[in-house]
Amino acid sequence: MIDLTLIGIGTGNPQHLTLQAIDALNAVDLILIPNKGAGKDDLAGLRRQICDQVITNEKVKIAEFDLPGRDPKTPDYRQRVDDWHDAIAVVWSETIAAQLPSGGKVGFLVWGDPSLYDSTMRIATRLQRQQQVALTVIPGVTSIQALTASHAIPVNEIGAPFTVTTGRQLRDHGWPDSADTLVVMLDGDCSFQSIDATGVQIWWSAYAGMREEIMVSGLLSEVADQIIATRARARADHGWIMDIYLLRK
Amino acid sequence: MIDLTLIGIGTGNPQHLTLQAIDALNAVDLILIPNKGAGKDDLAGLRRQICDQVITNEKVKIAEFDLPGRDPKTPDYRQRVDDWHDAIAVVWSETIAAQLPSGGKVGFLVWGDPSLYDSTMRIATRLQRQQQVALTVIPGVTSIQALTASHAIPVNEIGAPFTVTTGRQLRDHGWPDSADTLVVMLDGDCSFQSIDATGVQIWWSAYAGMREEIMVSGLLSEVADQIIATRARARADHGWIMDIYLLRK
Repeated sequence: MIDLTLIGIGTGNPQHLTLQAIDALNAVDLILIPNKGAGKDDLAGLRRQICDQVITNEKVKIAEFDLPGRDPKTPDYRQRVDDWHDAIAVVWSETIAAQLPSGGKVGFLVWGDPSLYDSTMRIATRLQRQQQVALTVIPGVTSIQALTASHAIPVNEIGAPFTVTTGRQLRDHGWPDSADTLVVMLDGDCSFQSIDATGVQIWWSAYAGMREEIMVSGLLSEVADQIIATRARARADHGWIMDIYLLRK
Repeated sequence: MIDLTLIGIGTGNPQHLTLQAIDALNAVDLILIPNKGAGKDDLAGLRRQICDQVITNEKVKIAEFDLPGRDPKTPDYRQRVDDWHDAIAVVWSETIAAQLPSGGKVGFLVWGDPSLYDSTMRIATRLQRQQQVALTVIPGVTSIQALTASHAIPVNEIGAPFTVTTGRQLRDHGWPDSADTLVVMLDGDCSFQSIDATGVQIWWSAYAGMREEIMVSGLLSEVADQIIATRARARADHGWIMDIYLLRK
């Protein structure tokens, strides 16, 4: 029997940790940290650093595991992601069995919040198909909140809806009719270039919430090139980048 | 000169507080707590309780102020809200002047996150028009995160968008074309009754994230009546209610 706790840790600023997350980190037998390999990002290092800072219970074991990669030969996006989640679930299962042969409490640190564009919960569901797993989710501060806090803007206009979407969706389907505010995540391609910039304001952050945060905001038509250049430079400097932006008509 | 910090405190569970929020609460000269009057809700009490639990700096003063009401005689919704925000800004200004005649650091505890369907940031902007105000925003765990954590569900489907909207929008405009997932907030009227329930799943929570949380989920066609009855009973029992739900096609 495995008690699995997915712990939202906020956006990489150890100050984003909630008291609930700190309690949860101290209440598990084992914390699993994915290692994406050199040059991918330094999130594994950040997770270890957070554990060092807030775990006072000496009985908590920390184990790293190598995250399998996605298979670029699988053409269909959904199938590629599904296969990848299956492969990760196998690695989880093996690592947990090796570390906790008679079961116990396992924790995962999840960047931002476990519900938002994160695969950890989907992999946990796969694990539940194979063995008895009780799942607990601890909410965390998302990069949406980090973005709007840094820029000191509301995410919504008064009483109005907003849509959260991905760079791919924006490129493939354009601006949806539903809302005058879009939050765009998972965008490796500055997809704001694909829309009509007339009258659109953008608030952009890389490394939102972290000490390294870089912010650019203004009329999209005026700052798009600056964001593209800033993003390329930051990515080269850090070896990785995570960015998010809000668009408003 | 006023340093104004809007501090996201999560959804009423003191365990949702971040380390950043706790630091911010201890770094101000004055905390202002709105008092909505008896029978409205017990959020003022909750804010005082959070302050009692985490403020260790004895120099922090706490002052309550009476929140003006909206004028039901103003027919236009946006105008009614604008007038209300103006009135609140006046009360803020007077209370701050009385408590900190030579300026200083003022903090507000904001339920959830200051960017999400909350008026505090808009009122702060009004204050900035009248006097020198430096604004800082501390992000918090939102009720969206509390909802999805309690139900242990992702907010989005893989790579797909979702729209966050209000009960009023859902009633007036129906399900938007943009997304198969809707998060509905600020809904005093169980507006899910206004849509076609065929094939729609609902995850509903009242008092999301709090000890009192009540959860109902299932096919909308099967659980709608149960939610309506549960909501009415909980509202009568507590004297107030705050609920949120996620709909997925």
